[in-house]
Amino acid sequence: MADFRMGEPTAMAMALRAASARGIPFGPNPRVGCTIIDAAGKIVAVGRHRGAGTPHAEVDALTEAGDRAHGGTAVVTLEPCTHTGRTGPCTEALLAAGVRRVVIGMPDPNPVAAGGARLLEEAGVDVVVLGEDDVTFGPQLALLNRGWTHGLVHGRPYVVWKTATTLDGRVAAADLTSRWITGDAARAEVHALRARIDTMLVGTGTALTDDPALTARDTDDELLPGQPLRVVMGRRPLPATARLLTDGAAETLTLTTRDPHEALATLFERGQREVLLEGGPTLAAAFLAAGLIDEVIAYVAPVLLGAGPHLLGDLGIGTLGDARRLSLQSVTRLEHDVRLVLRPYRRLPYLPDGREWFPANSLSDLDPELGSV
Amino acid sequence: MADFRMGEPTAMAMALRAASARGIPFGPNPRVGCTIIDAAGKIVAVGRHRGAGTPHAEVDALTEAGDRAHGGTAVVTLEPCTHTGRTGPCTEALLAAGVRRVVIGMPDPNPVAAGGARLLEEAGVDVVVLGEDDVTFGPQLALLNRGWTHGLVHGRPYVVWKTATTLDGRVAAADLTSRWITGDAARAEVHALRARIDTMLVGTGTALTDDPALTARDTDDELLPGQPLRVVMGRRPLPATARLLTDGAAETLTLTTRDPHEALATLFERGQREVLLEGGPTLAAAFLAAGLIDEVIAYVAPVLLGAGPHLLGDLGIGTLGDARRLSLQSVTRLEHDVRLVLRPYRRLPYLPDGREWFPANSLSDLDPELGSV
Ligand SMILES: NC(=O)c1ccc[n+]([C@@H]2O[C@H](COP(=O)([O-])OP(=O)(O)OC[C@H]3O[C@@H](n4cnc5c(N)ncnc54)[C@H](OP(=O)(O)O)[C@@H]3O)[C@@H](O)[C@H]2O)c1
Ligand SMILES: NC(=O)c1ccc[n+]([C@@H]2O[C@H](COP(=O)([O-])OP(=O)(O)OC[C@H]3O[C@@H](n4cnc5c(N)ncnc54)[C@H](OP(=O)(O)O)[C@@H]3O)[C@@H](O)[C@H]2O)c1
Repeated sequence: MADFRMGEPTAMAMALRAASARGIPFGPNPRVGCTIIDAAGKIVAVGRHRGAGTPHAEVDALTEAGDRAHGGTAVVTLEPCTHTGRTGPCTEALLAAGVRRVVIGMPDPNPVAAGGARLLEEAGVDVVVLGEDDVTFGPQLALLNRGWTHGLVHGRPYVVWKTATTLDGRVAAADLTSRWITGDAARAEVHALRARIDTMLVGTGTALTDDPALTARDTDDELLPGQPLRVVMGRRPLPATARLLTDGAAETLTLTTRDPHEALATLFERGQREVLLEGGPTLAAAFLAAGLIDEVIAYVAPVLLGAGPHLLGDLGIGTLGDARRLSLQSVTRLEHDVRLVLRPYRRLPYLPDGREWFPANSLSDLDPELGSV
Repeated sequence: MADFRMGEPTAMAMALRAASARGIPFGPNPRVGCTIIDAAGKIVAVGRHRGAGTPHAEVDALTEAGDRAHGGTAVVTLEPCTHTGRTGPCTEALLAAGVRRVVIGMPDPNPVAAGGARLLEEAGVDVVVLGEDDVTFGPQLALLNRGWTHGLVHGRPYVVWKTATTLDGRVAAADLTSRWITGDAARAEVHALRARIDTMLVGTGTALTDDPALTARDTDDELLPGQPLRVVMGRRPLPATARLLTDGAAETLTLTTRDPHEALATLFERGQREVLLEGGPTLAAAFLAAGLIDEVIAYVAPVLLGAGPHLLGDLGIGTLGDARRLSLQSVTRLEHDVRLVLRPYRRLPYLPDGREWFPANSLSDLDPELGSV
């Protein structure tokens, strides 16, 4: 907080809110928000990036601010870019507008775009960079573009496996009924999770058994704005009557593959960056075996079944010493249920510029020892 | 606290500590401690009951106090008895010693022995009864004789099912290795649990597969004083080399029955009052199906196996609507593991004198809606 001036925390909070506003296509571009404070300390404009081909957040905000940006401050969630893509570089726009100070949330992990902070400083602008260690904004800033940053590093989307099980590890009863194992609070949280990512993925098994809607809904069961893409993977076709194909609530993509790598590559190509894996035990085992799970959110209900499909299909593990051990990030009671957030142990590779990077956890603190399962 | 006088909380704490001292045979008698405060307010004696046929705690303390009890206060964890069993009634002993005030922890739930408080009051003694709602001592007082009280009400021991599973609900790997699923903190807690109950119960399946020691040990793996009885139930005989039969660490009872009711009746007859069920999925399912589980302590490790025996054998549940739902009492992180304490939903019957009673939970608060699974 030491480096903030009056009004800047408010401006950063507004920029973050603008960046994460619903309805923004995430795609291959980062989510960015920008607030302009005039020379007198008054917030005069809030801008945001709305997806590939549209103005960057800085330009959006500068356009709204007009002359009032002169001698003022730009508070922006991501380091302004230096490259000319489909739009001109934002550093240039900030300099042209006569901005005297720039407060930056996160440094840009993309080597093509990075260097904006230094360029601005060299031009005499007062620059502050918060980074993901900032006590106030660090976690939200890191979470905002987790999928995009992960994509830059790994060339595939960030995958969160969400599960809901009984205490004895069943995801459904013997007759395959699974509505509802967990209670209202856990279910509401899953809908909030869906509204924050851009892709939901299930196998044909879940699609055929449950005929799910796979939409993000509020507590009144109304669709939230900005539905994520629904994806079904597997060789079997869905019946023409499947809810996923007929309800028109959101787009559905069917991938007639069983290869998790291939599925993620197709999704990445299409611009998807954060996948919520909501499939059954078969798909979960396939993704785990392929080392493609980055985070596990497990809801455990105080329920005993004694029969029914398990949380997880066979992984080929024969003895306890070979078990997959995860790092327990957080444990939280949600009414009658429990939420565990877990992360695989393994070091992640480095950012293109050599800095270490690991994705921000949606619900807990960061741990530098973590990687994918 | 309003009714306490100076020194009495200390005296009650000492009485509780004396009552729960290790090495006391629990058997069919309650655990009781008693402290004597002289007329000047000085603690002059601490006594305790050491099991059937030995003096009651009050008499033990009064003997130590001698004349100093005259005009003083007796602080006792359980309502003094009025009946002449193998020893004379304690109310008489207190009156004979000239005690002027008696602070009682719990009222006696046993109708044969109850009435001591009223009798003392009628004799002009100043009487205070705390009960299990006392904010300071209530929970420990209720826990102290949970098994004994449960026995009076139900005519069978109190049964705690302890489990240790992976996140996917496995109690062992495919090759039946199960050491160790949970970490040090959870294992240390299980040993502390064992040291607090009087009976450990497993099926022949667990005894034959794991050849367990079933002892209460400290963190240096040394035996704690006062080992609980070890019980194995099932039709198969154990090999003469089984650790349970040869190590001499504690007594082992083999029950060649598969009937949980019969096993508990035999144990109750023998004076056992609190059973820690540490068997495998088969025994757990049998006890659950028979409605004989009073509390579940489930340790969940952040581990995935994808194969291996489940937490729980078949209960005959076919659809989710018939699932056994438990009440989640507490959720606690223990290093890398999680401990859930659960209680069945169902009303318990009433005490012989008509007062409602339900057992104190070892690790969390009480809930009047609970009963046995
Ligand atoms: N409680 C929960 O959190 C939760 C969540 C989801 C599902 N469920 C329950 O899980 C059950 C469905 O389980 P499930 O395992 O069949 O569902 P699933 O994992 O969603 O689908 C499995 C199917 O996906 C296809 N598939 C795609 N990639 C594959 C791969 N790499 N390896 C093998 N198969 C692949 C296969 O079908 P093809 O033959 O078509 O290729 C396979 O049969 C339902 O009862 C559902 O209610 C519970
Ligand atoms: N992680 C944990 O918390 C934990 C705890 C305990 C065990 N385990 C694991 O569980 C596995 C053993 O499982 P398990 O189910 O075989 O063990 P178990 O439940 O302890 O023993 C089952 C055996 O008990 C006898 N039995 C007694 N009463 C019975 C009844 N009412 N109905 C049916 N059988 C009854 C039967 O043998 P007879 O034919 O002799 O009658 C039966 O095969 C081992 O791999 C062990 O490591 C894990």
